Amino acid sequence: MVDSTLHRTGIRAVLSQEIEQEITLLLQARSHQARSYGPAFARLWDITSHSVLGGKLLRPRLLVGAFDALTSDTETESGLREQALRIAAAIELLHFAFLLHDDVIDEDVLRRGEPNLIGQLLHEGSETASAQPTTPHAEGHERRLHWARSNGILMGDLMLAAAHQVFARAALSPSTRLRLLDLLDYTVVESVAGEQSDVGLGDGIIASELSAVLEMTRLKTATYSFELPLRAAAILAGSSDAVETALVAVSRHLGAAFQLQDDLLSAFGSSREHGKDPFSDFREGKETAIIAYARQTALWPRIEPLFGTHDLDESAARTMQALLAECGAHDFIRTLIDDQIRAGWQRVRAQDSPIPPTLAEFIRTTIDSLKDRRS
Amino acid sequence: MVDSTLHRTGIRAVLSQEIEQEITLLLQARSHQARSYGPAFARLWDITSHSVLGGKLLRPRLLVGAFDALTSDTETESGLREQALRIAAAIELLHFAFLLHDDVIDEDVLRRGEPNLIGQLLHEGSETASAQPTTPHAEGHERRLHWARSNGILMGDLMLAAAHQVFARAALSPSTRLRLLDLLDYTVVESVAGEQSDVGLGDGIIASELSAVLEMTRLKTATYSFELPLRAAAILAGSSDAVETALVAVSRHLGAAFQLQDDLLSAFGSSREHGKDPFSDFREGKETAIIAYARQTALWPRIEPLFGTHDLDESAARTMQALLAECGAHDFIRTLIDDQIRAGWQRVRAQDSPIPPTLAEFIRTTIDSLKDRRS
Repeated sequence: MVDSTLHRTGIRAVLSQEIEQEITLLLQARSHQARSYGPAFARLWDITSHSVLGGKLLRPRLLVGAFDALTSDTETESGLREQALRIAAAIELLHFAFLLHDDVIDEDVLRRGEPNLIGQLLHEGSETASAQPTTPHAEGHERRLHWARSNGILMGDLMLAAAHQVFARAALSPSTRLRLLDLLDYTVVESVAGEQSDVGLGDGIIASELSAVLEMTRLKTATYSFELPLRAAAILAGSSDAVETALVAVSRHLGAAFQLQDDLLSAFGSSREHGKDPFSDFREGKETAIIAYARQTALWPRIEPLFGTHDLDESAARTMQALLAECGAHDFIRTLIDDQIRAGWQRVRAQDSPIPPTLAEFIRTTIDSLKDRRS
Repeated sequence: MVDSTLHRTGIRAVLSQEIEQEITLLLQARSHQARSYGPAFARLWDITSHSVLGGKLLRPRLLVGAFDALTSDTETESGLREQALRIAAAIELLHFAFLLHDDVIDEDVLRRGEPNLIGQLLHEGSETASAQPTTPHAEGHERRLHWARSNGILMGDLMLAAAHQVFARAALSPSTRLRLLDLLDYTVVESVAGEQSDVGLGDGIIASELSAVLEMTRLKTATYSFELPLRAAAILAGSSDAVETALVAVSRHLGAAFQLQDDLLSAFGSSREHGKDPFSDFREGKETAIIAYARQTALWPRIEPLFGTHDLDESAARTMQALLAECGAHDFIRTLIDDQIRAGWQRVRAQDSPIPPTLAEFIRTTIDSLKDRRS
């Protein structure tokens, strides 16, 4: 057991190195080119390169791990694995594009406990001399915030474009490239539709119901975080349509579990571990599944006045945590996560499942790491 | 002369119809798919489809016009022209993506004199019942504005992705498709770098100098509005590298003239014709070439207090116009536009120019319509 865990950890470390190398290659070419557009653009690229490489690489590791589980060594030698690594790196750029635009929309300046790209540009602006030094302080802050957020939009555009360029140029058969382009297209539309729902729920444009929140979650996170990498692996490995279809169902269950875990960690976890601003979901009035459940309970009238309060202090936030536990929301979501993980695993090992044993084993290790998640 | 003008106008009308049809095809497939994601997403697509088709189609008309000038009827029959029309439509989607993100960044709610996508969603929000009707009015406006702007970011992402999908799927030889993808990549990077400079100049992060403003202008507008369509036409038509290189120089001159005209129209034109909020450039403190020139003159101390004043009234705006004329900025820019148009035309008809006569003639008609621009 210990040996097997060590072995797996070792494999994961090598995989992460390969993926990081591929991402570095993609970014370096662009970062080099960026220097010709002046120091502000070069600086934006430097921050971006550093931030992208600081991620957990969940999605590219899913892709390459599943690809490796589906292919034999012979295929690996044919250059196909190189393409898989490149597509995996592109998926990380796509993820970063979504994070950036999400941060602009949510007005977040922190990510993983550190200033995000927007936060870094905001702070830098206050250190360097302004081109118009007569600007009053408050207005100066507004301008720097505008500058930082605009950079977030623009770099998100560049990352989105870069991800598409990689898919478009993949050295694959035309039919395989088209299948990947179809998958990318579907993924982008689903993710954007999900983000729109998320914003609509938060802004009170869309009514908050548990079913709407769960569907939003699937669209916004599960599709690009699980369905995209697992299906891309199947397409690259030349698997049958049946495998790809089975992976859709598995991905939806695991993706739902993953996002619900995120919500639980944000609401009840240690901010030191999950790296977000503690209680920011409460302060921002984020319509998570936890809140949608709580709305249906008798305790909601006591939770509502606290929810979405911009200056919520720690004691009030602790009260809110206690009420969310008392009304049953915490346990409900916990059970939902377990159900989703179980349902995902059942699809993998169902008697008629087309998923080959090597891939099933890879998905099992993925589920194990999901269960142990602390951040 | 009258006949020739009528003939040309007729050709242009047919061309516009063909392009509109192609854009409609691209949008319809996506708009149909959007309906499965609920009414808010479907509504966003409806507004988008309507807005995209309301444009002047300058860029796609440049592409297809230049392509037609470069190809014989035989080539036209081979399906290549169909690909040119599709790439032209994709360029209009790219343009719309840039407009949307530009409007979010500039906090504009008007475009061509009408509420833009953001403005429409903002007003609709106030008419339809909110999901949380207890929201106070001021906070309600903030939420609707946030909803509208977030939709602008998200739809910009979808349009950017859609444009890339069209380039990636073009039914062309691999080498032609790769050349187009390279051109798209270069265009997106230049446009984003230009937009970043524009924001940096406006926010006082980058010092306002005429050379910096002119370079920003080239990057932000000239590349995607002139270089992209003209070079794409040359690539699609299978022209030599020499033609493509000559078109780079021509495009830069014409693109600069076009953007400088935009600045003049915004500052001195009739808002009924140019369709923007009158004096919005003055109010927003937009760092145009006009302002960069005025900064160097003795009258700047009298202009500066008015510039960037959010509540600038009409009388003060008229004073600002008069001062910009008096300091010589208006005439300087007018001369700069003429110089750029002349330089562009000289590159076309230079003795060693590789540009064929049919394309030279097309560029001449483009220059004529540029000269007559009122909006």
